[in-house]
Amino acid sequence: MWVWLLADDVDECGRAGATSARLDRNADFVSARTGGMVESRISFEPIGRITTPFESPEGMPIQPTGADAVSGTVEVAESYADGLQDLAGFSHYILLYVFHAAPDAAPLEVDPFLDDEPRGVFATRAPRRPNPIGLSVVEIESVSDREIHVTGVDVVDGTPLVDIKPFVPEFDVPSDVETGWMTASESTIRSERADERFL
Amino acid sequence: MWVWLLADDVDECGRAGATSARLDRNADFVSARTGGMVESRISFEPIGRITTPFESPEGMPIQPTGADAVSGTVEVAESYADGLQDLAGFSHYILLYVFHAAPDAAPLEVDPFLDDEPRGVFATRAPRRPNPIGLSVVEIESVSDREIHVTGVDVVDGTPLVDIKPFVPEFDVPSDVETGWMTASESTIRSERADERFL
Repeated sequence: MWVWLLADDVDECGRAGATSARLDRNADFVSARTGGMVESRISFEPIGRITTPFESPEGMPIQPTGADAVSGTVEVAESYADGLQDLAGFSHYILLYVFHAAPDAAPLEVDPFLDDEPRGVFATRAPRRPNPIGLSVVEIESVSDREIHVTGVDVVDGTPLVDIKPFVPEFDVPSDVETGWMTASESTIRSERADERFL
Repeated sequence: MWVWLLADDVDECGRAGATSARLDRNADFVSARTGGMVESRISFEPIGRITTPFESPEGMPIQPTGADAVSGTVEVAESYADGLQDLAGFSHYILLYVFHAAPDAAPLEVDPFLDDEPRGVFATRAPRRPNPIGLSVVEIESVSDREIHVTGVDVVDGTPLVDIKPFVPEFDVPSDVETGWMTASESTIRSERADERFL
């Protein structure tokens, strides 16, 4: 399980306070030494968090398709509120977030929810993956100040948000798509719920 | 412009060498003090890189739709090769990567390629954004060992890769999509090329 390592002054979104947040806003590469390990990483700052009814991954819908009726709130930190201009008008957004409830260890083969055979992690949407970044397409209901009310959220409550992008079919929907091992019908995806396998 | 801060032993993908890579594999939260600034961040490790014909953002297609005919190679580091099992069979993948050629400063209002008015950054797909994570849906041509040959790549050569996810219409394609200010026709998107505005 991940932990948050926070500065002394943090806001309600779990971000560093106003003074350092402005300075910290832009992602960059950091080289940190922790316990003697040399790390070569890309670092991002959460821009907010996602509030949902799901307290843990267990029992959650496995994808937004299974969460059509589930409402949630995407809240960005005050210092990013101006970036939400013009959101209204688009019906759907891509949320990028951190699978913060997934454990550290990320095997390269996983047992997906929709199949009985182990699969290469990059051929799955498993939350437990080398870089635990999640992606969900959600429908926008309303935008107010720095909150976006959405439906179709399939993430755990308190999920750290890293980016919001408008969903644009001309960019995001290819034609003639084949889905390999993932032969589950849409009705299976709608009804399937997560269990403890990625906890 | 970002810089890479690399460990002494780095492989051809710009990743820390085998010893530290295994230990570093999983993202976690880091709290690093740099120049007196307190940072509260999420850190990811590039899992590979994307090779394309585009040496700089200028003149590139602005989205995969405009890059249908452009071939590229997605190469993952050796230590992640096993995660590529079962990729074949899916026709399309979502690549998540770092906009490494975008500058640090990320204003919350941007002038998008497809419009004359400034827009809130989260209502655009501009590469210059608070967390410069890019997303492209590409078509897979072949997979060999640790290389994936794709078409429809709209990224700069050498782009650091952070995740690969199979594109699944049941998860990723909502119905009744509206696209707000982005009224450009598909033909405009196909022909529009990037200029220097995000450099």
